[in-house]
Amino acid sequence: MIGCRCPVCRSDDPRDKRTRSSIYLSMPEFKILVDTTPDLRHQALREDLDRAYAVLFTHPHADHLMGFDDLRRFCEMQGGPLPIYGSEATLAQIERTFPYAFNPAKKVPGYVHVIPHVITGPFELGGLEITPLPVPHGAVSTLGFLFSQAGRKLLVYLSDCAAVPDPIRELARGADVLIIDGLREKPHPTHLNVSGAVEAAQAIGAGQSFITHQTHEKSHVDRTQELPPGIGVAYDGMKFEFELH
Amino acid sequence: MIGCRCPVCRSDDPRDKRTRSSIYLSMPEFKILVDTTPDLRHQALREDLDRAYAVLFTHPHADHLMGFDDLRRFCEMQGGPLPIYGSEATLAQIERTFPYAFNPAKKVPGYVHVIPHVITGPFELGGLEITPLPVPHGAVSTLGFLFSQAGRKLLVYLSDCAAVPDPIRELARGADVLIIDGLREKPHPTHLNVSGAVEAAQAIGAGQSFITHQTHEKSHVDRTQELPPGIGVAYDGMKFEFELH
Repeated sequence: MIGCRCPVCRSDDPRDKRTRSSIYLSMPEFKILVDTTPDLRHQALREDLDRAYAVLFTHPHADHLMGFDDLRRFCEMQGGPLPIYGSEATLAQIERTFPYAFNPAKKVPGYVHVIPHVITGPFELGGLEITPLPVPHGAVSTLGFLFSQAGRKLLVYLSDCAAVPDPIRELARGADVLIIDGLREKPHPTHLNVSGAVEAAQAIGAGQSFITHQTHEKSHVDRTQELPPGIGVAYDGMKFEFELH
Repeated sequence: MIGCRCPVCRSDDPRDKRTRSSIYLSMPEFKILVDTTPDLRHQALREDLDRAYAVLFTHPHADHLMGFDDLRRFCEMQGGPLPIYGSEATLAQIERTFPYAFNPAKKVPGYVHVIPHVITGPFELGGLEITPLPVPHGAVSTLGFLFSQAGRKLLVYLSDCAAVPDPIRELARGADVLIIDGLREKPHPTHLNVSGAVEAAQAIGAGQSFITHQTHEKSHVDRTQELPPGIGVAYDGMKFEFELH
């Protein structure tokens, strides 16, 4: 955190270098980015990404959106506009913030250009079934996502939620991997705290669960040690492999 | 650059790791940030910044603005709203993009909160005289800045300009240091190219001049070698010391 001298912010453990929450799904023929954080360029360079055929948005808060203009590189490399997916409210907010990326009167080579797609229910991209999981996040709602393939629930991503309502727990139940908001110990009005994340993760019962969107309160090692079996801590650059059919 | 395999993007020379253009002025009792790039958090962590008492904006394009929300940390550490300075058009655009930071009905602890100040002419901050230098940047105008102290011209910063009009050259003349837009070799509609930057720098005749806002076209070493005496290449983390009176 800017200006912070705490042991976690000064840690040499790369897992304590926490950039803003985002995930990237890489299939043989399709690549999906979830959110465009202000760290997008750094994350893309670090992971050597050169493709993103679709971008999903959980919600349009600054820490999930403000790297949006860096999508220009994917438009440039892929030679066309980029489909983006989000709730109607999210897409409207993105268009208010980056109007030049939507239906530009003049298409400037090298500029970001997107085609918005409102998420109204489950949809398919690159052979994955994507089920939106609306969850409360203070005054707004965010979308989590369930990624399935051939009826198998592979991954549930719930990056920003103050609670996980029962119907969403039901949809998430039995996934291979769950990544879930677990901001800090003290309760927070718009995020699950660690004990709330643990409660929801245990109720959902994924094969493996990981908390994300953490503050600098605890180091990776210290936070990991206090969590019950089956629940770990996500970190920058963490990777999962899934067998696709 | 995202997805690029060129020798400059793959270079191990830290001077070839180019984040978005921004400068920071540190006086004993006052600190000024110029622009809030999407890289602001990374830049602030790299340089271990913990104060910014005022923020100047050259213009509100994404590569100069989208780290704005990270100003929240300076508000939090300094315990109050942050004065920001820019042209009327720039401040209006920032307010459209980040309305929650301006006169929030509900002040949320930890959120960014700014007090806008329209730049209409020279002003003073932290003992420095700041002279705005309007320069053309395609369809818009950006502000460069001349920083002086006790009548001495210390630094001229012209990060984004397609040309430097004569009255601005006159104001900049004789500064100790000039930092000037020099995007690439090929002409560009909104930026000076290298030869344009060299021509303007030689006309201005600063003690030392440095080109900035470069693409990945040439490495730091290669670009430096082709420049005439007295003109160098700015790089991330470059520092200048000035004697203040």
